[in-house]
Amino acid sequence: MAKKVVVAFSGGLDTSYTVMYLAKEMGYEVYAACANTGGFSAEQLKTNEENAYKLGAKQYVTLDVTQEYYEKSLRYMIYGNVLRNNCYPISVSSERIFQALAIARYANEIGAEAIAHGSTGAGNDQIRFDMTFLVMAPGVEIITLTRDKTLTRQEEVDYLNKNGFYADFTKLKYSYNVGIWGTSICGGEILDSNQGLPESAYLKHPTKDGSELLKIGFKNGEICSVNGEEFTDKIAAIQKVEEIGAAYAIGRDCHVGDTIIGIKGRVGFEAAAPMLIIGAHRFLEKYTLSKWQQYWKDQVSNWYGMFLHESQYLEPVMPDIEAMLTSSQRNVNGVVTLELRPYTFSTVGVDSPDDLVKNKLGEYGEVQKGWTAEDAKGFIKVTSTPLRAYYAAHKDEKR
Amino acid sequence: MAKKVVVAFSGGLDTSYTVMYLAKEMGYEVYAACANTGGFSAEQLKTNEENAYKLGAKQYVTLDVTQEYYEKSLRYMIYGNVLRNNCYPISVSSERIFQALAIARYANEIGAEAIAHGSTGAGNDQIRFDMTFLVMAPGVEIITLTRDKTLTRQEEVDYLNKNGFYADFTKLKYSYNVGIWGTSICGGEILDSNQGLPESAYLKHPTKDGSELLKIGFKNGEICSVNGEEFTDKIAAIQKVEEIGAAYAIGRDCHVGDTIIGIKGRVGFEAAAPMLIIGAHRFLEKYTLSKWQQYWKDQVSNWYGMFLHESQYLEPVMPDIEAMLTSSQRNVNGVVTLELRPYTFSTVGVDSPDDLVKNKLGEYGEVQKGWTAEDAKGFIKVTSTPLRAYYAAHKDEKR
Amino acid sequence: MAKKVVVAFSGGLDTSYTVMYLAKEMGYEVYAACANTGGFSAEQLKTNEENAYKLGAKQYVTLDVTQEYYEKSLRYMIYGNVLRNNCYPISVSSERIFQALAIARYANEIGAEAIAHGSTGAGNDQIRFDMTFLVMAPGVEIITLTRDKTLTRQEEVDYLNKNGFYADFTKLKYSYNVGIWGTSICGGEILDSNQGLPESAYLKHPTKDGSELLKIGFKNGEICSVNGEEFTDKIAAIQKVEEIGAAYAIGRDCHVGDTIIGIKGRVGFEAAAPMLIIGAHRFLEKYTLSKWQQYWKDQVSNWYGMFLHESQYLEPVMPDIEAMLTSSQRNVNGVVTLELRPYTFSTVGVDSPDDLVKNKLGEYGEVQKGWTAEDAKGFIKVTSTPLRAYYAAHKDEKR
Amino acid sequence: MAKKVVVAFSGGLDTSYTVMYLAKEMGYEVYAACANTGGFSAEQLKTNEENAYKLGAKQYVTLDVTQEYYEKSLRYMIYGNVLRNNCYPISVSSERIFQALAIARYANEIGAEAIAHGSTGAGNDQIRFDMTFLVMAPGVEIITLTRDKTLTRQEEVDYLNKNGFYADFTKLKYSYNVGIWGTSICGGEILDSNQGLPESAYLKHPTKDGSELLKIGFKNGEICSVNGEEFTDKIAAIQKVEEIGAAYAIGRDCHVGDTIIGIKGRVGFEAAAPMLIIGAHRFLEKYTLSKWQQYWKDQVSNWYGMFLHESQYLEPVMPDIEAMLTSSQRNVNGVVTLELRPYTFSTVGVDSPDDLVKNKLGEYGEVQKGWTAEDAKGFIKVTSTPLRAYYAAHKDEKR
Repeated sequence: MAKKVVVAFSGGLDTSYTVMYLAKEMGYEVYAACANTGGFSAEQLKTNEENAYKLGAKQYVTLDVTQEYYEKSLRYMIYGNVLRNNCYPISVSSERIFQALAIARYANEIGAEAIAHGSTGAGNDQIRFDMTFLVMAPGVEIITLTRDKTLTRQEEVDYLNKNGFYADFTKLKYSYNVGIWGTSICGGEILDSNQGLPESAYLKHPTKDGSELLKIGFKNGEICSVNGEEFTDKIAAIQKVEEIGAAYAIGRDCHVGDTIIGIKGRVGFEAAAPMLIIGAHRFLEKYTLSKWQQYWKDQVSNWYGMFLHESQYLEPVMPDIEAMLTSSQRNVNGVVTLELRPYTFSTVGVDSPDDLVKNKLGEYGEVQKGWTAEDAKGFIKVTSTPLRAYYAAHKDEKR
Repeated sequence: MAKKVVVAFSGGLDTSYTVMYLAKEMGYEVYAACANTGGFSAEQLKTNEENAYKLGAKQYVTLDVTQEYYEKSLRYMIYGNVLRNNCYPISVSSERIFQALAIARYANEIGAEAIAHGSTGAGNDQIRFDMTFLVMAPGVEIITLTRDKTLTRQEEVDYLNKNGFYADFTKLKYSYNVGIWGTSICGGEILDSNQGLPESAYLKHPTKDGSELLKIGFKNGEICSVNGEEFTDKIAAIQKVEEIGAAYAIGRDCHVGDTIIGIKGRVGFEAAAPMLIIGAHRFLEKYTLSKWQQYWKDQVSNWYGMFLHESQYLEPVMPDIEAMLTSSQRNVNGVVTLELRPYTFSTVGVDSPDDLVKNKLGEYGEVQKGWTAEDAKGFIKVTSTPLRAYYAAHKDEKR
Repeated sequence: MAKKVVVAFSGGLDTSYTVMYLAKEMGYEVYAACANTGGFSAEQLKTNEENAYKLGAKQYVTLDVTQEYYEKSLRYMIYGNVLRNNCYPISVSSERIFQALAIARYANEIGAEAIAHGSTGAGNDQIRFDMTFLVMAPGVEIITLTRDKTLTRQEEVDYLNKNGFYADFTKLKYSYNVGIWGTSICGGEILDSNQGLPESAYLKHPTKDGSELLKIGFKNGEICSVNGEEFTDKIAAIQKVEEIGAAYAIGRDCHVGDTIIGIKGRVGFEAAAPMLIIGAHRFLEKYTLSKWQQYWKDQVSNWYGMFLHESQYLEPVMPDIEAMLTSSQRNVNGVVTLELRPYTFSTVGVDSPDDLVKNKLGEYGEVQKGWTAEDAKGFIKVTSTPLRAYYAAHKDEKR
Repeated sequence: MAKKVVVAFSGGLDTSYTVMYLAKEMGYEVYAACANTGGFSAEQLKTNEENAYKLGAKQYVTLDVTQEYYEKSLRYMIYGNVLRNNCYPISVSSERIFQALAIARYANEIGAEAIAHGSTGAGNDQIRFDMTFLVMAPGVEIITLTRDKTLTRQEEVDYLNKNGFYADFTKLKYSYNVGIWGTSICGGEILDSNQGLPESAYLKHPTKDGSELLKIGFKNGEICSVNGEEFTDKIAAIQKVEEIGAAYAIGRDCHVGDTIIGIKGRVGFEAAAPMLIIGAHRFLEKYTLSKWQQYWKDQVSNWYGMFLHESQYLEPVMPDIEAMLTSSQRNVNGVVTLELRPYTFSTVGVDSPDDLVKNKLGEYGEVQKGWTAEDAKGFIKVTSTPLRAYYAAHKDEKR
């Protein structure tokens, strides 16, 4: 009986080659599974299905995990205002994990002996796939033809053509990874440390000038309205924000960071929705969270983002961080107004039932009702105590 | 013999009142000292001097501590990319400390029995002044007429007029604090949580459209060139960047944060130079520092900024943090290119002798020379070990 | 109608004076409330009740919050292995908060116009009481006769005697605070930095020699058995461990730390149960938690302890930390064996269903089954990548 | 011409086999180098030299890096009070790095084509050796016969005997690694999670009963005297403390932690000097450092220890941490008194010119001179401000 292999199938060259080669040359019964976290259109998925069968798959399946991705990861990235290196919304790298989890689950369900994916040996994705499979589908063999045989694109195209499969596999100047939480752009100018991406490298281009206001509502830290329109479908809300922001080319930037493998790399991205939603969310938190809530959220969120990016979503500490983040969102309610302009946006204001800036005790720099001048002087006297003691003991310490 | 008092004199209403009242009503020998960290023009200082004598000061002195402020604080804020709440360059609050230190030093030199300042009991500045004086001039009395007598502006103006002193003390809609590291704007619309500042609130307005490139050079983390022009005077370099960036109205934002006194407050600001210099510096660090250098720098810098803001510059931990930051800058060398546009800027690239993105071991996502596919698989296998062990032991843990 | 005041009544000199003075001299209707977190015996409480009425209280009440203290605080201190400055189990300071909360709740219930407590102006307790009352009973006046009138002990005793109240208020060489989570000892030799406490300063003395084993069981991080005996009453379990450990004089130490007020202070303590339970719990976590779970728990627990100690239990970040700690305990199950000896104990072993030391992948230093020698070499090769890149670029950096 | 190989030679079975096999079977010119960080006696080194030549080495050399190890690592571990997992003084693992660095330096000096070491594929040491060689001797081949050929001890002994080399290679129940900073003990009972080591497993046994005082002096954080005797040779001071403490069997414990490879492991250790010196040093810091100096030192030291243990001594962040630690020690001066008892010790007191417990402002719990009761009340009022604002806004939040 033929051995079952699940191929993590994106419809690209590497995984197309893999499906055909495993079916034809290695006698596997191939289950092509396309795990979608919001980056594939319905049309693309249909093409993937047709191609999978043409390539010799016994079965094709789309695993839609967009909602799962939102519930289990994206949500926490918003709670945590996660931007890697203070810049990158961890767009594709976090989605990859949920694609891998879906593939592993599917492989376990159908009792597959092997899982194949198309990653090379140079990048991060091999780690996200391999690790997830090693942990969640232990004992299942991992097959990576592109990595192991160090095939060139031309060799793969030739093999497919020779076997009657034709598709447009032209190598583009840039390679794109499109997801619900942004598009990353590799290659081209950014391979040179000293250059940026030109306008032509981006998929979305500015269509609006001037400025407009955008109102984003949050309930317990989750997006719930856009310009007054209520959303229960968070994915739809994100897409709405993306549409509005992309018209101003908001959210473009270039991330320079450390890969899991240890070298540094650069990647461009366009991610209007993440930057606007996180920008609004973080602003709302400044009004509604205490100083130390913000401090500790930042500590653990930064780590959470790093671990998501580095394929450590399954690390046992992650649910612990998620519990803290969830608790922290209990008062993150209100509507944030942003002002959008070409390539940028700014925060305008917040309307929140939990606004701590508005309080009965005093207004900053204006008038205080919650304490007297004498209280303030006592506060300063006592607060200075350790420094008074220190400098009394260390009269020669220069500052 | 008359008792000597040093008045921290800014030329504003509160300190003008203080000089006259202490000289005339309380019989002090008044030493009016204006501590300048770059926010006063030569003309303003001349007016201050003339007014001090008119108000009855025995002596007026300008204490110029701009260079000291750069050497002892601003430098480390750049090393640390310090932005409070991920937003505010701690413009005026850090300058206040160095003004207070200069005043305390001056009071000690002339053997003053008292120091007076004009802060109210509502804000942060009273803490910066009081604490510094308590610690660095122990035993010297602190006098704060505005705070203690809770005087209104009108009462102060009336007193000055009655005694023959006239100046323009019109209360503006906004109050401004101008310094080398930015201008902060209080009052007006931002007292309402839900409003932003209008264009008219800012001191500098955009004069350029389109875009231009700006090149900032760094040596061991310190700015050393702007658009190819070398600067040994760091203050002049900062002013050059400010001039270029202000033409695009770059660096405007609104900071919402916790005051030292504990209530939340909002303050607008315009700070082109800080945002551009820190933006460039942080970008350069992504190319030249290791992942963990960046991680730990961020940890301690965030704290450093908080402590600077909160009047804890004298805390003994601060030199410890400065030592770490200084060590971290040993390879932060190179020229950063930014692209300026109205209200915003983006990073373009970096030309650095210490660029770690350029290396012989591999290019991200392209080709690896420093390891093989087998090495990568071994790496992943071993890296997954703790997770494999964990999920083998906890088969029911859901993620 | 007489105004109602709640006096936080411990039965000591200061609060006895306060009850009588408020009732007799100031015409208050006095409600004497003794909040017990486990430090008072039934006998002491009975005496307190009798004395309260003798002193002129209209009403006496014991507020037993021992269980509440365990549920809301002690539990998390065990989860977090909280030892301030790596030493002190935050015995009394955390109990004080729950006493204050109980007093505030009682004052609100009976509609008191004022709350009185006996703290002086020198220490931490005034802050714990004042802050809790200011926050949880806003608008209620706070009365602190001992602090405000800076009374001497003799003046208080004289007043009480003059009014017919006699009790043993001899000032002891040491002052003790006894609670469920340890006894703290102030005064005496430790006022001299260079001396320790003599045997006579301790309340409990060693009665056993040699050594014995102690087995403590945990379920989800909570103590559930002692030497095989199951406990649902956690307070009883703690008392059992205390009894066993105290026979060896385990848990004595001297804490040197920063008070909330800012000066440093020393306090001796004896706390067998906390040291044994935390020692066992931490040891169990080493077997059952991942490296990063332990790392992050330590981060937030350290802060949690600091905030508990510093009267910040009500800070909004505290529930966030509690949520993380609770999540982290999901696998902290098992029985820990300790070996007790005079003045010390050591860890022996752990029997846990969640033991991660026992696994199928390899035994440390023995034989590996989860990876091959080639995997290890690949792991090392890849792990060394950033360092290889760094030192290739910085050949002159000396280490 | 024969290729040169440096063998990291300890005199044990694996490296003895390696020397002979490389010389005899593979035709290498073998340079046997024994890198000593304080764990080898003069006698052992002499035996090593004789054996190396018997085994066929062309050259034997002892590389004494004990002082270098102290200067570059041990010193910082004391500054940082480094105890991994709050327990283990990172005895052998940090020494291994400096042995590897010495070997790499030697290989570079003599122009070796290869370096060989005796580590297996199961543990941490392979990583410390491989990584250091990969980074500091790039391009030099790494040979690990024991790991690659997965040889058994018997096979190695047989080969040596067959070729005329005899020595006592009896496998002991426990394996020991002896160094200046402690002895680690692997194997035996601790392979079972639930057992501890028996007395017989330790190399040093208690010879004293009762108690005695030990005085350790520090200057800028470095040990400078023991019981009044001055030491400029820090290694000698450490050995002196070891001798005194070992007589009480102080410093025995069992470390359970995560290996670099990812599994958990247990190791016993006996380390009197590290525990006493770190115990004394930490105690002295409580008197001489500010609260936040201690906080931040702990943060970075914990990481420093982790990175030392995990073979990341060369990570660029390490000098940054060392700079901070060095700065923090500027006031860590004084003499600490400890009381030693069988199996344990306690802190007694500190005599320091930089003692911050002794100050003019107030004595904890006694009398305050640096502030008044009114100051304290003002302090508390203002400090409670954010909580008063929060609970006024969130009346329903339960604590």
